[in-house]
Amino acid sequence: MRYLSANDIKTFFSMRNAIDADTEALSLYSSGRADIPLRTNINIPEYNGQSLYMPGYVSGADPSLGVKIVSVYPDNIDKKLPSVPATMITLDAQTGIVNAILDGTYLTQLRTGAVQGAATELLSNENSKTALLIGTGGQGMAQLEAMLTVRNLDKVFVSDLDMDRAKKFCETATLNFSEVFSTIFEPVANPNSVVSEVDIITSVTTSKRPTFDGTLVKQGVHVNGVGAYTPEMCEIPVELLKQANHIVFDTMDGVLSEAGDIIQPLKRGDISKQEISGELGQVINQNIAGRSSEKDITFFKTVGTAALDVVVADRIVKKAEEMKIGMEL
Amino acid sequence: MRYLSANDIKTFFSMRNAIDADTEALSLYSSGRADIPLRTNINIPEYNGQSLYMPGYVSGADPSLGVKIVSVYPDNIDKKLPSVPATMITLDAQTGIVNAILDGTYLTQLRTGAVQGAATELLSNENSKTALLIGTGGQGMAQLEAMLTVRNLDKVFVSDLDMDRAKKFCETATLNFSEVFSTIFEPVANPNSVVSEVDIITSVTTSKRPTFDGTLVKQGVHVNGVGAYTPEMCEIPVELLKQANHIVFDTMDGVLSEAGDIIQPLKRGDISKQEISGELGQVINQNIAGRSSEKDITFFKTVGTAALDVVVADRIVKKAEEMKIGMEL
Repeated sequence: MRYLSANDIKTFFSMRNAIDADTEALSLYSSGRADIPLRTNINIPEYNGQSLYMPGYVSGADPSLGVKIVSVYPDNIDKKLPSVPATMITLDAQTGIVNAILDGTYLTQLRTGAVQGAATELLSNENSKTALLIGTGGQGMAQLEAMLTVRNLDKVFVSDLDMDRAKKFCETATLNFSEVFSTIFEPVANPNSVVSEVDIITSVTTSKRPTFDGTLVKQGVHVNGVGAYTPEMCEIPVELLKQANHIVFDTMDGVLSEAGDIIQPLKRGDISKQEISGELGQVINQNIAGRSSEKDITFFKTVGTAALDVVVADRIVKKAEEMKIGMEL
Repeated sequence: MRYLSANDIKTFFSMRNAIDADTEALSLYSSGRADIPLRTNINIPEYNGQSLYMPGYVSGADPSLGVKIVSVYPDNIDKKLPSVPATMITLDAQTGIVNAILDGTYLTQLRTGAVQGAATELLSNENSKTALLIGTGGQGMAQLEAMLTVRNLDKVFVSDLDMDRAKKFCETATLNFSEVFSTIFEPVANPNSVVSEVDIITSVTTSKRPTFDGTLVKQGVHVNGVGAYTPEMCEIPVELLKQANHIVFDTMDGVLSEAGDIIQPLKRGDISKQEISGELGQVINQNIAGRSSEKDITFFKTVGTAALDVVVADRIVKKAEEMKIGMEL
């Protein structure tokens, strides 16, 4: 058995590796190779907490098995502890033996960045040069890295409700990425001032209102909706959905039951189910078409699935075993 | 976070500690303080395996939270690996943060021995001097240790379908316990040759037929049914149940849905639900009566519950933290 901290994982498992693993995970998911039982929720009312258990199995040449444990304890903030601590446990699917324990918070950032990277790689125009990132919270940096990994971007605009946060985020991004990417990071006070010029937009917020004006996007834009993970949240403007030639989800079940971005306009009748193309895994498996012209507008919505956790974690653990990285227990 | 191997746990957490923890767990369970969701089963048909996730929460002064992961892979035997590997993960219930990973196989042996110890301590005659252990499989040694821990036994007879196994088990028991207990361990070919003289009987087999003749037991005997954990298995003779003054379970829900020892005679009408006293936790909480005379015949049936796992694991982890034992991650 092996313990892998976030720092261990960073030394040998790149965003490129994670994008490849997520791409494989979604392909297998859409082929019916994933067994993802309903998650188990335990309420801990005495401490205003909740503890969630999300096991999953994905079969294939490299079978993946594991469980992510995520707790939601808002009062942890007062104790200077993470309010959403997460831990991933992996098993060897061929023997059922637990083989590793991983930092679940970093795994979540990595696989959530990577799923957007997989979508951006498949759906955005190959010559995309500019992007806009809206939201600089816990998932922001991995979202940025994923876009940088799949497209040669000259410039990424960064927007946040708090302009100081956007500025600091750009400074950190320059520190993190300037050795590998020559991209310029530019904070913007109002995302709408640049929406009409960017090739890619990624929104990752908990907003209940659209984070940009959907009428302003240019032809050929690819948009990722990564935040807004409850039916009440909604960060994507319906005008974008109405213009989109391809609306693609990570999983149909997940998005249709959790994502306000889609649930709300469907309920209002602003879009219909016929306008939804299907799953990214189906695009990967070439069962449905992706972008067919440079002018197509494409939209990808993700709420995540345990299939991403177990496959990415499995690939991390297998590489760590080969390279003998991490603490052996 | 902390990793605790079986050997780590053995150095500081005794059977007496485990019996106290199980007693507390059952008391809390029967008071409605346990939240034990249905376990999640994932089938892994490609490898003839099954992977089970059993989370649980028990509130109280020392709240306990965790998940036991147990896999069932019969073909592991061919690979010289355990066919039922198990791992326990504990969380700090006050913060939702994973705080330890423990050897789940040893935890299961310990808590399963201890729950019988708790029952034997509460239900058997205090001056019990002799016992009979039927079955010397993986749970046998912990079952023996639990009986030795709660009663001053002069002699324990040990029976197994394979007499050589019973002999070897007695030799190992002498090695394990002779420094602490002066008990004599005696293998017997036929359990019925000693049933009429023993004060305590513990059966821990996967038998589908009674493992002893229930008409032969003496007045005052206490019997534990620890094996036979499916509706198809049945190791306890119905004649014993008919004579019993007190029939007590670890949990009503568990025994009535899983234990052939009770399900089969209930179905046949050989016993009625009215003859079941209730849960051991209710005896502990003094809500129902236990033994009321030296001549009472008492019977305890256990199939286990995640409440035992999480409470025993929590007590192990808290003691390990105090004593700084185990590998810190």
